[in-house]
Amino acid sequence: MHFALPAEQLALQAKVRHFIAESVLPMEHDPRQTAHGPSPELRQTLLDRAREHGLLTPHASREMGGLGLSHIEKAIIFEEAGYSPLGPVALNIHAPDEGNIHLLEHVATPAQKDRWLRPLVQGHIRSCFAMTEPSPGAGSDPSMLTTQAVRDGDDYVINGQKWFITGAEGAELAIIMARMEDGSASMFLTDTDRPGFILARMMGSLDSCFAGGHAVLRFDNLRVPASDVLGEVGKGFRYAQVRLAPARLTHCMRWLGQARRAHDEACHYANRRMSFGKPLGEHQGVGFMLADNEIDLHTTRLAIWHCAWVLDQGERGNFESSMAKVLSSEAIWRVIDRCVQVLGGQGVTGESIVERIFRDARSFRIYDGPNEVHRMSLAKKILARAATGGGQCVPAKTAT
Amino acid sequence: MHFALPAEQLALQAKVRHFIAESVLPMEHDPRQTAHGPSPELRQTLLDRAREHGLLTPHASREMGGLGLSHIEKAIIFEEAGYSPLGPVALNIHAPDEGNIHLLEHVATPAQKDRWLRPLVQGHIRSCFAMTEPSPGAGSDPSMLTTQAVRDGDDYVINGQKWFITGAEGAELAIIMARMEDGSASMFLTDTDRPGFILARMMGSLDSCFAGGHAVLRFDNLRVPASDVLGEVGKGFRYAQVRLAPARLTHCMRWLGQARRAHDEACHYANRRMSFGKPLGEHQGVGFMLADNEIDLHTTRLAIWHCAWVLDQGERGNFESSMAKVLSSEAIWRVIDRCVQVLGGQGVTGESIVERIFRDARSFRIYDGPNEVHRMSLAKKILARAATGGGQCVPAKTAT
Amino acid sequence: MHFALPAEQLALQAKVRHFIAESVLPMEHDPRQTAHGPSPELRQTLLDRAREHGLLTPHASREMGGLGLSHIEKAIIFEEAGYSPLGPVALNIHAPDEGNIHLLEHVATPAQKDRWLRPLVQGHIRSCFAMTEPSPGAGSDPSMLTTQAVRDGDDYVINGQKWFITGAEGAELAIIMARMEDGSASMFLTDTDRPGFILARMMGSLDSCFAGGHAVLRFDNLRVPASDVLGEVGKGFRYAQVRLAPARLTHCMRWLGQARRAHDEACHYANRRMSFGKPLGEHQGVGFMLADNEIDLHTTRLAIWHCAWVLDQGERGNFESSMAKVLSSEAIWRVIDRCVQVLGGQGVTGESIVERIFRDARSFRIYDGPNEVHRMSLAKKILARAATGGGQCVPAKTAT
Amino acid sequence: MHFALPAEQLALQAKVRHFIAESVLPMEHDPRQTAHGPSPELRQTLLDRAREHGLLTPHASREMGGLGLSHIEKAIIFEEAGYSPLGPVALNIHAPDEGNIHLLEHVATPAQKDRWLRPLVQGHIRSCFAMTEPSPGAGSDPSMLTTQAVRDGDDYVINGQKWFITGAEGAELAIIMARMEDGSASMFLTDTDRPGFILARMMGSLDSCFAGGHAVLRFDNLRVPASDVLGEVGKGFRYAQVRLAPARLTHCMRWLGQARRAHDEACHYANRRMSFGKPLGEHQGVGFMLADNEIDLHTTRLAIWHCAWVLDQGERGNFESSMAKVLSSEAIWRVIDRCVQVLGGQGVTGESIVERIFRDARSFRIYDGPNEVHRMSLAKKILARAATGGGQCVPAKTAT
Repeated sequence: MHFALPAEQLALQAKVRHFIAESVLPMEHDPRQTAHGPSPELRQTLLDRAREHGLLTPHASREMGGLGLSHIEKAIIFEEAGYSPLGPVALNIHAPDEGNIHLLEHVATPAQKDRWLRPLVQGHIRSCFAMTEPSPGAGSDPSMLTTQAVRDGDDYVINGQKWFITGAEGAELAIIMARMEDGSASMFLTDTDRPGFILARMMGSLDSCFAGGHAVLRFDNLRVPASDVLGEVGKGFRYAQVRLAPARLTHCMRWLGQARRAHDEACHYANRRMSFGKPLGEHQGVGFMLADNEIDLHTTRLAIWHCAWVLDQGERGNFESSMAKVLSSEAIWRVIDRCVQVLGGQGVTGESIVERIFRDARSFRIYDGPNEVHRMSLAKKILARAATGGGQCVPAKTAT
Repeated sequence: MHFALPAEQLALQAKVRHFIAESVLPMEHDPRQTAHGPSPELRQTLLDRAREHGLLTPHASREMGGLGLSHIEKAIIFEEAGYSPLGPVALNIHAPDEGNIHLLEHVATPAQKDRWLRPLVQGHIRSCFAMTEPSPGAGSDPSMLTTQAVRDGDDYVINGQKWFITGAEGAELAIIMARMEDGSASMFLTDTDRPGFILARMMGSLDSCFAGGHAVLRFDNLRVPASDVLGEVGKGFRYAQVRLAPARLTHCMRWLGQARRAHDEACHYANRRMSFGKPLGEHQGVGFMLADNEIDLHTTRLAIWHCAWVLDQGERGNFESSMAKVLSSEAIWRVIDRCVQVLGGQGVTGESIVERIFRDARSFRIYDGPNEVHRMSLAKKILARAATGGGQCVPAKTAT
Repeated sequence: MHFALPAEQLALQAKVRHFIAESVLPMEHDPRQTAHGPSPELRQTLLDRAREHGLLTPHASREMGGLGLSHIEKAIIFEEAGYSPLGPVALNIHAPDEGNIHLLEHVATPAQKDRWLRPLVQGHIRSCFAMTEPSPGAGSDPSMLTTQAVRDGDDYVINGQKWFITGAEGAELAIIMARMEDGSASMFLTDTDRPGFILARMMGSLDSCFAGGHAVLRFDNLRVPASDVLGEVGKGFRYAQVRLAPARLTHCMRWLGQARRAHDEACHYANRRMSFGKPLGEHQGVGFMLADNEIDLHTTRLAIWHCAWVLDQGERGNFESSMAKVLSSEAIWRVIDRCVQVLGGQGVTGESIVERIFRDARSFRIYDGPNEVHRMSLAKKILARAATGGGQCVPAKTAT
Repeated sequence: MHFALPAEQLALQAKVRHFIAESVLPMEHDPRQTAHGPSPELRQTLLDRAREHGLLTPHASREMGGLGLSHIEKAIIFEEAGYSPLGPVALNIHAPDEGNIHLLEHVATPAQKDRWLRPLVQGHIRSCFAMTEPSPGAGSDPSMLTTQAVRDGDDYVINGQKWFITGAEGAELAIIMARMEDGSASMFLTDTDRPGFILARMMGSLDSCFAGGHAVLRFDNLRVPASDVLGEVGKGFRYAQVRLAPARLTHCMRWLGQARRAHDEACHYANRRMSFGKPLGEHQGVGFMLADNEIDLHTTRLAIWHCAWVLDQGERGNFESSMAKVLSSEAIWRVIDRCVQVLGGQGVTGESIVERIFRDARSFRIYDGPNEVHRMSLAKKILARAATGGGQCVPAKTAT
């Protein structure tokens, strides 16, 4: 066990940090940002810059045109990208494309990869992942899935409704989770301009960092050829797991960058702003918040790295990624909330980027499984281990 | 000591509750709401409704056309009004007008009252309170005031900059806090269309409940006749205290209503939404949040009532109002944050009013003195009492 | 609604405060204190002092020799008594005698009162309440009661095991909860020197404030005449409720006094002890803890008073007392824990009474129903109200 | 960066775990335990067992008879030892001997090592570290040191008072921190049977895990030859730092083991105890506590490992060890407190080892610098870095 990063990882980290500082931070006040995320034009400008620096879609395989990053390398790079709300867009590592690319790499056929994965990796198209449904459909509990896919000749005909579908507006590709006639679930790939694929409305949202915002979709006899099933029929829930554990962790990585940014802004303000005869930060009421921020950032980073390492060992890492998701989302929230408090009026207005980070970050405790669902799952596993395992809480995996 | 409300207070409470439910809640989706609060037209529509029901500006004195509410009565009514983000606008009890009306009632000359207070109470004009300044001026520490007022014949000439000035856009009256040549501070009343009164720009903000949003103001040789000084020259800091303690408490009251609303929304959702085989609320992870909400609402209400009673006894109530502000703003925030979590995706999107309440409420820990400043002030008083008082923490004032 | 105490209550409060300061505090270092509470001799000394001052068993009815205090009066007096760990023993208002006296007043026959209640009120005997059982018996869930009472002629024969029975050692009277042959439960009164009543062993415990400590009891064919059934056969669970809601609240009152004491000790230390160039309390890291203490004490007191008032209206007050128990036990714990931290090394050693208060207070979150059980119960009621009540969280009872 | 432990570390971990399970846990109910720690006889029994297994004083250098563990190896082994309150005593790695051994290895002369270090490592003698003083002396702020050492011929004559001196009773060696005539500080080694070395009294304490308890010492013209100065005259504060950073971290390690033990006890109970129709742990109110425990244990372990690695790189690691101390002591406390709550009545009585762990653990937030002092120190460094460092919170050291 050691914590040293090899030279090439340090170099890549430095490169991305420099890219964000020089090429992305100056764009943060670009007016082409909307309540539903950066405009397509702004996005292309950012992608172009990343492409020039050889940093586009770095998590994709080398074969597809990426850098083939390990999970640990993703941890390092994605944190740096997250330092700006526009960073993940620029590197093409934002949700949901990032997770969709990961999923397609693992499950798609060569033909599907050529048609959809390659342009995704190149930043030419965007995608969305259509799983969540309004009540009484599938929310936190995926078993409540109601969208139906019925076989009709060589096609499947899909009917149903989805919401909170991130990135739907402007996406060329959708991955749809639907229930089969036998009760199992499958994933379907579809172009979004097919008849019956309807973007019912855009949803207002607290966050504004996702290109394409969040939408309500309706499928009205949407016809998808059997060749566009992703992977095998009936394995939808299993593929959801393939996608979710790493996608969950990459969320943690990006958000850690956001929190670090907020902390930096707060530190600088605390040094500069005078109050009651000394810099704000010299009041313990403020200084202690900064100390707690640093501790939260530190433990979050360590937990992300550990989980990334577990995934790099080829493990499923469900227990570790649930822990990382819960603790990251809560620690990061505490950090950002403290930064708002340190910044005072500036923290709740457009005077500081932290207001935007605050709005963007709240949903992290809800996305990718509400923390309550992860805690439920962790508890179940802990109790099962205690019941069978002979008596000691074994430290998390530390041996190959 | 007892907690029973007399019949007339219960009747007024029921009347306002009914008014909010029937006349205000249906307006919550009115499109005339902007990032800088309800539009003037929407505001007038709401004021008209309150006027019809005899509920306009109820905290003003009967002489001025209000209901002459005691602090306890305000506690009851303002909570009810706060149940909708539009409620305080409708009743004309929103910040900063509410506090300005209170201040003018106490300090203004009859001529000033006729000119500005009466139309404020009638809802014909709006006002703003220009105290906070950008660094290195007065933020949390009022002694850092930099805006200057210099005597010139029968006038004062004011120069300086202010920001976070709530309600400035569209306000006809401004109350300006400025430093005198002898180092003391005074308050000045001014029409906002005088030369040298410049609204430099609007500020983006997390909240959107205040009519007129938040603005940056600049005073460029703004000339104010000596007759428009509010009260006596040099008593600006004292008047700020007159305004702040009750204004602080009315914030608590309105926000308590907001939190109660969020809690009701969460409870209904928890009853309705199924997850893992039973209603969401039957999972302890959710049910415990609802229980904690109820506890936080309960203690907040009790502390507000107690402080209102202290003020009604003619006390300054600085200690009690600092405690109430700190505990209310933190308890209310916990409640709203839990409600967002219970609502899941709906809590972070426009699907639920709770998302808006969440955005509106964050600044409460910052406005009216950041909680850190109140804690500092409380600690100082606690230590002084312990040093001199013979040894026991005396329970908060409970005897006339 | 108002918060003023009438003159006679203020006088009684002052009297008890003076009694504790003059007659009880000086006894705190008396060596006749053991891991299982004050010795019988020390207890008699304390009772004698209270008797002299007319303060013995003040909550008992005047008929029985007490002062016939209302719940609000109890709130005021018990807090004062709790200021010393020995105070509740001195006034004969400690658990479990206090609750047992309350129960016997409500349910016992005149003969039972003469035999047991009168000497209890006079402080001549002590009692215990034998309900809790080791697994798989009744812990938090009273329906799991396993101790059996079987009718045999004019007697009942009781068999079973109990533990965590506070005050058992040295108690002359036990109230035993047992299951009847028809599945219902009854309460039995018994002298503790009857054959078959066996004190199996004393239990080590974190706290040491209860006279008689905590014990494991065994009933081995314990024979109790039918005339010693408390109240009606089969109403054990209902009587448990009669006892528990007020007993729960009196716990809150006494512990509030303990927390106030700890806070006073911490304040004095923070004024006295120098560190890094100024008194400890002038460091915000310490001062903020003191401010938070004051807030927690304040809201706890208000919630206790409110609940006491509800009980004084003749209400069952289960919802309010559950809220009060949960919030008091957690706020009080936070206060005491902060005081330990302020006191540093003295807070974790016998140098300060706070170390003892800390040990005594931890179980408050467990006794009288673990907070988790109260939250479960609160959630259930909240959801039922929301489902049926037409839509608004109604503020807690405030009208007669 | 990776988290795999090499085979020899895993083997040593397994060996210690087995030793604790087989040879130490069975001793936990040994009656030779007092309020001031295990008796000398019990301690010798435990040391003998460790000696037999080749596990005595493993952190000492091989030259001195230990295993010459790296900091990372200590992290692994000390956590295992901490699994029983008696484990650190058995392995001779308890405070203050552990830190004193470390200090003597670094600073003592060969003669001093022969005389005191060797028998310490062999478990033949014990030692104490006499730094803390009662007010107005050195508590959290070492600069307030008042104990005086005055040169007199070849000796120093020491006068002063110390308290909270852990392990003093029965210690043969004391390391005394005293102020020199020039205002600097030195450390002195002394046998405790010299004239003028007075153990004034034992202190009652919440914890009972330290052999020799805690004591008040008085030095009354204690005469120490100049050859018994530890290291160089005037370097006392520097040596205190040499001792404190690693000693602080080994505290974290041992306490992590304690918390893990408490968690295991709680898990087993949650599986076994039925309540409201199912095992306790299946109630989310309990299950979520177990999940949070696991998260706290995980982040604590990672932060300890990281800091140990930093120390192994030869760094001072003050920033990292302050973070580790603060976060460990608070996370561990949360874990243990939750375990008490899960265990209910058993958690606050001698029925469970957790009650003892709870008592032992509270002081961890106070010892080795109260967390407030560490936060103050962290804040200062964070602000200095932000002021000079060009703008980004640099992730904690990760490169050699």
